[in-house]
Amino acid sequence: MTARVTLAPLDRVGIIGGGQLGRMLCAAAARLGLETIVFAPEADAPAAQLASRFIPAAYEDEKALAAFADTVDVITFEFENLPVDSLRQLATAKPVLPDPEVLAITQDRLSEKLLVESAGFLPAPWRRIDSPGDIEEAVAEFGEIIVKTRRFGYDGKGQWRVRRPSDIPAVWTALAGRPAIAERHIPFEAELSVVLTRAQDGAIRSYPPSRNLHRGGILRRTHVPCGFPDEIVTRARTIASALAERLHFVGTMAVELFVLPATDRIDGERLLVNEIAPRVHNSGHWTIEGAVTSQFEQHIRAIAGWPLGSTDALGTVVMENLIGEEIDRFEELLGEPDAHLHHYGKRQVRSGRKMGHVTWLRPE
Amino acid sequence: MTARVTLAPLDRVGIIGGGQLGRMLCAAAARLGLETIVFAPEADAPAAQLASRFIPAAYEDEKALAAFADTVDVITFEFENLPVDSLRQLATAKPVLPDPEVLAITQDRLSEKLLVESAGFLPAPWRRIDSPGDIEEAVAEFGEIIVKTRRFGYDGKGQWRVRRPSDIPAVWTALAGRPAIAERHIPFEAELSVVLTRAQDGAIRSYPPSRNLHRGGILRRTHVPCGFPDEIVTRARTIASALAERLHFVGTMAVELFVLPATDRIDGERLLVNEIAPRVHNSGHWTIEGAVTSQFEQHIRAIAGWPLGSTDALGTVVMENLIGEEIDRFEELLGEPDAHLHHYGKRQVRSGRKMGHVTWLRPE
Repeated sequence: MTARVTLAPLDRVGIIGGGQLGRMLCAAAARLGLETIVFAPEADAPAAQLASRFIPAAYEDEKALAAFADTVDVITFEFENLPVDSLRQLATAKPVLPDPEVLAITQDRLSEKLLVESAGFLPAPWRRIDSPGDIEEAVAEFGEIIVKTRRFGYDGKGQWRVRRPSDIPAVWTALAGRPAIAERHIPFEAELSVVLTRAQDGAIRSYPPSRNLHRGGILRRTHVPCGFPDEIVTRARTIASALAERLHFVGTMAVELFVLPATDRIDGERLLVNEIAPRVHNSGHWTIEGAVTSQFEQHIRAIAGWPLGSTDALGTVVMENLIGEEIDRFEELLGEPDAHLHHYGKRQVRSGRKMGHVTWLRPE
Repeated sequence: MTARVTLAPLDRVGIIGGGQLGRMLCAAAARLGLETIVFAPEADAPAAQLASRFIPAAYEDEKALAAFADTVDVITFEFENLPVDSLRQLATAKPVLPDPEVLAITQDRLSEKLLVESAGFLPAPWRRIDSPGDIEEAVAEFGEIIVKTRRFGYDGKGQWRVRRPSDIPAVWTALAGRPAIAERHIPFEAELSVVLTRAQDGAIRSYPPSRNLHRGGILRRTHVPCGFPDEIVTRARTIASALAERLHFVGTMAVELFVLPATDRIDGERLLVNEIAPRVHNSGHWTIEGAVTSQFEQHIRAIAGWPLGSTDALGTVVMENLIGEEIDRFEELLGEPDAHLHHYGKRQVRSGRKMGHVTWLRPE
């Protein structure tokens, strides 16, 4: 149990990770009068531009980590594939929120699924993979499956679909000895996510669940409201809040859920927990213009020990990612007077790289 | 006539002046993927935190100005009490928007009033002051007057009320030889301001006029909508747009107007032009949360050569400045889940200093 943190304006928030999530956290912190120190290995980290100070160093650089801890009042992260031991080192010097042990759980799909089950909710049916034989058994039990590395997967990386036994050797080779799990392929009706923030005093505010469309494992578009009846919306928020409590989470996090067809429930349940992201999340970008308080400001409020803001939506919202060369749509989108454009300032356009996003809000 | 500027994301915007207006311009520019270089004399300029780069130097430092111009693609300003010659120097190297000659006009209350009159609108009745005798004549003609230095006044500084001839010697002493004007004291019904943006192609988008309350010469509170009938609203926007055109203005500017009581028109007119601010303006801060596009983003769009966004209001909005020790209300305001808080990151609290602001939006 960490001691309570309470910041005052002009205090300094340390952020590990330098991507667009860090960039948007810096903007939110600055609005509230807080300074930000970003620690990240990339020389041209998108967050560096908006940070009060930028420390370019490797996540394993103990000396740099110690110097970073010296300059800040609280530490958080915007990136989850971090060495937990680095966060543990930092936590001996300054409060780290959320707690590094949360990362230790969510970084491993196996411990994440056990957590979901222990809280009384359902992940997609799964089993542990330690050998080609385990994959065979999973196919036999579930039919079509997805094999996923237990650690360091994101945006569809480290995942392979297995439709028939003849697919197995290639997948086993690709795994290259990495620990993995297999999940039953879920022909879901929709993917939802619930973004929420939990304060240090345990108060939780969740946003209206969004409906997400992915392509190639990458989030394409988020819609709010999600279009499902109240019963599903309430259940989604309940599940997410219960998981946040179970993790003693502090800050903003996201829970991704599959909605099963009404005729296809598992144990009477229509919502399966797909993933927990222990940080601000792409499916919450719509909150910048579309909600009273953004997910980024909420995260800062939570780790600063300040009261949370309202999570009410201001209308109907659509958020669309600009991925890779789609950033060339920027010019055209500038011509839409209602489009809220975000460009992450990345110089290198790479296929699959999130370059920016655009949000449309229709007030109601 | 300056050549047209068209920026691309990752280009660099130079901003002269390092206050909160610059800080909010930096945030808006960054959202659109532009880098910002702030030039200002204060070591701890509020804009420095959000700038990609900060150049601390005096406004008259020709060498520093030249180096600054070298690093940027377009130059703008957030502060109007600048040496116009410094801007003229910069304009020989890089496009400066709005044109420095606009500042040359608006920095002098006399040329500003002549501009308003030449455009066919009314300033408060005024006369030029060169001697104590001129003040006497103004009092004889107008009754109660306000004597204002022609240059470098802001937030009520450089202004003195004269109610009777015996007030004159003290005011004349305070003027200390500075050129001045006298204005008839206007018992206005309300103060409005129109914030608008003019693009390089001449397109103009104005925001709904706001109603402003001042205290001690400093803006206290802004209300949108302003509560006046369409006829006044339309007239206010017409006047502001005509002035922007007359100035060949590029960027965001504000026109402050007095509304006369309906029974007290001058030449049939209910709106007098009080002041033109050739920059983003405190009475436009409500647009950050309260309008589709903020005044800051509009300014960046205009100087970047990009299309303007929508200026529609999202509901009923109130913006309140936090001045001097009022910043201590920050903690209490954090507890209002609907309050949008802005803290400018200034370390020194001084009486009359704008430390932050808060906006409430009631969607409609």
